[in-house]
Amino acid sequence: MDKRTITGKKAKSRMKIMHAAKYLCEKNGIENVTFHDIAKEADVCRTTVFNHFSTTDQLMIALFCQEIEDIDQYCSEINCSGMAMIEAVFDKLIEDTAYYPVLTYKIASSTILRGGVEDNSLIYIEKMIAENLPAPYRQQAALYTVATMGAYYGLVNHYHSLNKTFDADQMKEEFHQLLELIFGGREQ
Amino acid sequence: MDKRTITGKKAKSRMKIMHAAKYLCEKNGIENVTFHDIAKEADVCRTTVFNHFSTTDQLMIALFCQEIEDIDQYCSEINCSGMAMIEAVFDKLIEDTAYYPVLTYKIASSTILRGGVEDNSLIYIEKMIAENLPAPYRQQAALYTVATMGAYYGLVNHYHSLNKTFDADQMKEEFHQLLELIFGGREQ
Repeated sequence: MDKRTITGKKAKSRMKIMHAAKYLCEKNGIENVTFHDIAKEADVCRTTVFNHFSTTDQLMIALFCQEIEDIDQYCSEINCSGMAMIEAVFDKLIEDTAYYPVLTYKIASSTILRGGVEDNSLIYIEKMIAENLPAPYRQQAALYTVATMGAYYGLVNHYHSLNKTFDADQMKEEFHQLLELIFGGREQ
Repeated sequence: MDKRTITGKKAKSRMKIMHAAKYLCEKNGIENVTFHDIAKEADVCRTTVFNHFSTTDQLMIALFCQEIEDIDQYCSEINCSGMAMIEAVFDKLIEDTAYYPVLTYKIASSTILRGGVEDNSLIYIEKMIAENLPAPYRQQAALYTVATMGAYYGLVNHYHSLNKTFDADQMKEEFHQLLELIFGGREQ
């Protein structure tokens, strides 16, 4: 059998499992999703799920890494830099967050608390911001990076706290206003 | 027996339990703390713990409400308003966060995700900010409130992500720099 075929099949079932897991976690809450449910939703055997992910934690980490990979892929496709890149990345992140608000929050929280380990993808985003800061802000890169990440956290937590509906377009507009506050309207 | 004495005793044992719970949760992780451990640490019977809190969730909510009550008490004592009040409240919040970083994070997360319920103390802090914003910022109160809360979240998450030591003085200084970014150095 062609190796590529196996790889393709494996990648496909992995993707099906991850899609099913995302869907079920958001619908029923992470705590209420079993590997049995995921297998049923993804239309694969339960052992197939275990072959890909031996624990729920591993699956959660994979979901978050996938999100970061998607963002990374997106970055290379849009082919921009500077403030435009920062805005594009957060637009994408906000869209995904609005699609899976509770799941994104829980995965981000567990990533934040795991702190400093290799798969900590939030560090990747912080790095991306620091690298794309326009020249006038680079002397205080750490400060502007924390402020930018904070704008995202502040917005998302505000929506959760008040039980507001996660409307991606509305949130993106508010995020841009927050960036204007932080960068004093001198974003370009 | 004098009613006040009972109230006093009850309040005292409640306080002992909450102190013990905070200490143990930070030391061993929330997941690894039982009511038995808390009773032992607080030097009270296990039933006494159950009389005060029937579930771990209730205890966690009580801890967070206590934090907000402490902040509220502190606000009325320092007797200031406007930007000085906002700064004082976050200085206190950062001090407490630096003392119990993981616990504060977990309690805040569960409060954020419970969203919109009565005991959601984060809404209290957002309200306090909105009420104390200096006049020039009041027209965009929601935006400045989210940005200010975001500065706190961004800072705390940055420390967790990078496994940095939670140094309250350092964090307060950085938080003030973030406020300067947001309020354009026109804080007074």
